[in-house]
Amino acid sequence: MTSTRTAKKTTYVIGVDFGTLSARAVLVNTANGEVCATASEAYPHGVMEELLYADDQVLPPQTALQDPSDYLFVLKKTVRKVMRQSKVSANDVVGLGTDFTCSTVLPTDAEGNPLCSKLEFQCEPHAYVKLWKHHSAQPEADAINKLAAQLGEDFINAYGGRYSSEWLFSKVLETLRKAPRVHRSASRWIEAGDWIVWQLTGRESRSVSASGFKAMRVVDRPNSNHADYPSPNFFAKLHPRLAGFVETHLTAPHLAPGKCAGHLTKEFSKCLRLPVGLPVAVGNIDAHAAIPACGVGEPGRMVMIMGTSSCHLLLAKAGRRIPGVCGVVRDGVVPGLWAYEAGQAGVGDMLSWYVDNALPAEVFAAARRHESGVHGVLSDRAEQLKVGQSGLLALDWWNGNRSVLMDAELSGLLIGLTIQSKPHEIYRALIEGMAFGTRKIIEAFTSQNIPVREVVACGGLAVKNSFILQVYADVIGRPIQLAAATEASALGAAMFGAVAAKVYDNMGAAVRSMTQAPIKVFMPDRQRHRKYTALYEEYTQLHDYFGAATGSIMKRLRALQRAAL
Amino acid sequence: MTSTRTAKKTTYVIGVDFGTLSARAVLVNTANGEVCATASEAYPHGVMEELLYADDQVLPPQTALQDPSDYLFVLKKTVRKVMRQSKVSANDVVGLGTDFTCSTVLPTDAEGNPLCSKLEFQCEPHAYVKLWKHHSAQPEADAINKLAAQLGEDFINAYGGRYSSEWLFSKVLETLRKAPRVHRSASRWIEAGDWIVWQLTGRESRSVSASGFKAMRVVDRPNSNHADYPSPNFFAKLHPRLAGFVETHLTAPHLAPGKCAGHLTKEFSKCLRLPVGLPVAVGNIDAHAAIPACGVGEPGRMVMIMGTSSCHLLLAKAGRRIPGVCGVVRDGVVPGLWAYEAGQAGVGDMLSWYVDNALPAEVFAAARRHESGVHGVLSDRAEQLKVGQSGLLALDWWNGNRSVLMDAELSGLLIGLTIQSKPHEIYRALIEGMAFGTRKIIEAFTSQNIPVREVVACGGLAVKNSFILQVYADVIGRPIQLAAATEASALGAAMFGAVAAKVYDNMGAAVRSMTQAPIKVFMPDRQRHRKYTALYEEYTQLHDYFGAATGSIMKRLRALQRAAL
Repeated sequence: MTSTRTAKKTTYVIGVDFGTLSARAVLVNTANGEVCATASEAYPHGVMEELLYADDQVLPPQTALQDPSDYLFVLKKTVRKVMRQSKVSANDVVGLGTDFTCSTVLPTDAEGNPLCSKLEFQCEPHAYVKLWKHHSAQPEADAINKLAAQLGEDFINAYGGRYSSEWLFSKVLETLRKAPRVHRSASRWIEAGDWIVWQLTGRESRSVSASGFKAMRVVDRPNSNHADYPSPNFFAKLHPRLAGFVETHLTAPHLAPGKCAGHLTKEFSKCLRLPVGLPVAVGNIDAHAAIPACGVGEPGRMVMIMGTSSCHLLLAKAGRRIPGVCGVVRDGVVPGLWAYEAGQAGVGDMLSWYVDNALPAEVFAAARRHESGVHGVLSDRAEQLKVGQSGLLALDWWNGNRSVLMDAELSGLLIGLTIQSKPHEIYRALIEGMAFGTRKIIEAFTSQNIPVREVVACGGLAVKNSFILQVYADVIGRPIQLAAATEASALGAAMFGAVAAKVYDNMGAAVRSMTQAPIKVFMPDRQRHRKYTALYEEYTQLHDYFGAATGSIMKRLRALQRAAL
Repeated sequence: MTSTRTAKKTTYVIGVDFGTLSARAVLVNTANGEVCATASEAYPHGVMEELLYADDQVLPPQTALQDPSDYLFVLKKTVRKVMRQSKVSANDVVGLGTDFTCSTVLPTDAEGNPLCSKLEFQCEPHAYVKLWKHHSAQPEADAINKLAAQLGEDFINAYGGRYSSEWLFSKVLETLRKAPRVHRSASRWIEAGDWIVWQLTGRESRSVSASGFKAMRVVDRPNSNHADYPSPNFFAKLHPRLAGFVETHLTAPHLAPGKCAGHLTKEFSKCLRLPVGLPVAVGNIDAHAAIPACGVGEPGRMVMIMGTSSCHLLLAKAGRRIPGVCGVVRDGVVPGLWAYEAGQAGVGDMLSWYVDNALPAEVFAAARRHESGVHGVLSDRAEQLKVGQSGLLALDWWNGNRSVLMDAELSGLLIGLTIQSKPHEIYRALIEGMAFGTRKIIEAFTSQNIPVREVVACGGLAVKNSFILQVYADVIGRPIQLAAATEASALGAAMFGAVAAKVYDNMGAAVRSMTQAPIKVFMPDRQRHRKYTALYEEYTQLHDYFGAATGSIMKRLRALQRAAL
């Protein structure tokens, strides 16, 4: 226990994790991190991908919108529920933290009212929240990348070489091009994670994390102490109406994670039944909030959040530009350290695809007698195989490649198929492909002298399938710890709330008090690691051949596909 | 009708097709080719792959043996059955022809008695028939290829550059190495197709076709009229005990297809209940017998026999060495023309693998309401797709590659997979991969100025699935005719019997009288052909990258697989 604890009375913090389909709130004991109550609630309007509910208009492909009023609705429902469940007195709650999917952005007026809440914009899709997985702004992302390369803008290096269609400016430019009226009426463009904090506190602030990882804000150029957005020249060239955009639409204090962004307003105090003036932490990115909850507050331990996709986060003392790593931000997760983010676009998604589209009935039949279902049957069988025995190898790009190639147009590949190939062999090859992809990410870090000593895994896929973690450990040749936290992001948000409330002086202290040791450690088997290294050489050859920026067959197949449709 | 017909009385010929698991006999009207009766019968001992039935000894991997007494058993059963069914008088049967899987070989004594029929060899696997798909002689094939390259033997060019483990000398050398006692006791090594004719007629003869396509006999060196086996020097270097082997073990008249090999013996006359002295055609290869039955007796029309694997046969006026084409034999199918054979090792096999190992239950459920089962459902759905729409592409090497790369170590590849990929898209990609493979074979011919104007398809897969034939036609840009004959090999064997019996002077005349027009023609769609050509360029790039003789990832994966086991 640390000397920074300020009270002997038991106090609590609330963390709210805003996900893609729902939000989860946790009520956490500040002394030991015990989660006393949990509540989750789906967004009433979900994700609008095909129809806009206001007028049932058909939305274009790759659209993914949300209604920000949903966020307030689920916030109220879940916070009230954890309070009710736990029977904790509101006066014992000392802080509140949130985290949000990112980059999930919306246009608002100067007071923070979403444009889509105004009658005139109700039927205008571009006035709504564009969710992280809204992917129709690829032409805009392409324009940004082209211009950034022309002008030699530094931010593009911090982003590993490519700005994504998922991120703020791609979406802003798309709105400007397709719905100029929305653009004219927007006084602010803001991450939903910052917007919710603005609502709670009545004060606009920006998280250095979201701005640094998604909005072109370069927190620190090498060997300087400067933090800035790209030059006005860049924005003016991108679109004349974006000249001066940063100064008018993004101004607000930029705060590091764990900083107090403000205090709960009277209105929200009533609505949430929490004390007026409760400290509220600055907004945060969902994956990033998980890091301290996994017990990580220091360099060298990579956190891997494994769900439908996976996110790799690493703290380090040095800030470097690493090709293929999506972002690097000083103070991005823990003040005083650089945070790196990399990722794999298809992980759980890819295994689900396999089970839904390529798994014979026989395995489903066997799964009826297995407590872990088809994944249990496949894992049990796959575990019996020796490394290399199936002769199969996969490039794990079913959703494109995020790190280290950053190319959404890449696709999955399976090689070595014969008429003897069995389903569990394919399943294992897919998992090995994912693990080889993670090894590529680790090597991107270590090749730049950013150390990765061990890996801490969290997320649904990590919790459910220990076979996967053992394969990963064997492939990367490092121990993998399975984090104790099951709702890591929500717990992390609460921990940031505790720091914002000054229950702890800093996140390191919060980590020491509020997290538990990993529940399991998967040690790499030396012999399997050696054999995997031989297989990894083949993976690398395929990776480099098909991932080459120009002339990739995969990209030409995508082009033929588009031409066919 | 042709002037060569010799009798007004209705006469009949019998064709017997010896397949892998069973034999089929047909009784055919010589005037019009009408099949009056059909009978099939499985070999009692089937294929011995795991156990030798004589003593239940466990057989090594890749073994595939048969008992030659089974051939006599099914011959008797099926011939008697067609006679009984048709009520045709034995005196109206004027000829008999057979065809056989190839290269399916056995060692015999000087009288043609199989060594495995002798008590001392009953428990010796190497004394049995080694079926075409007995694949354990790969080290011997490798030794042959190495030596042939060293000595610059011409036969290897006629075989497209590689001698197969399936063929006679690989199996002879394997026996010599592993069972020298069998080798010492063998006075003859003979194709089962020639052996059955020896049994029927009491006279040993050899088909120029089997010797030319499988036994290193080069029927005609370019610009010469010479026909010969490799030099004694070659055999002596291959193994000292093979010096003089050709002269002692293979001597017998070599006869072109349709020649009369002899006449039915008294013993077999009784056994088959057919006239003594009935003309019996020289032995033939099963796929080759199908050619005239498909109505093909002239250059430029490629016959494609589509089953678990597929065989491509082409007649031409010129004899050339074509890299990747398994064989070229003068008079090999029709006297006066050169016959070329190429093939794809996995076709129906690959689709069966897909259905058994990677097809979800949903498609099976839909197939309950479809008269053509899962293949019907998949074909109907796949037919709706546009060329290139799935973004998928397959290398069709699930069984290795026969033509034009001749490498059994290659394996299947699927590229372009995404979490949107659907089963019927994969199914279509597999079929397109097979069609691209056939296009490669056609281009191997046309690049050497051997014309391929159109394709005639026969075999189970062709009959069952018209979607496949349309894809092939679109990919190769040539019409594909579906042959009328359903048991093409057996009908062809009967036609060769008719020529041997001099009902017709030559095969051309038999083809004109005894075959029907194709039942359906699949015309290539010009637009789809153009789009497929773009996709074929990508196939070619993958084909050349992964098919390269040295450094192929596929071969290294096989090596890792062997090391793991």
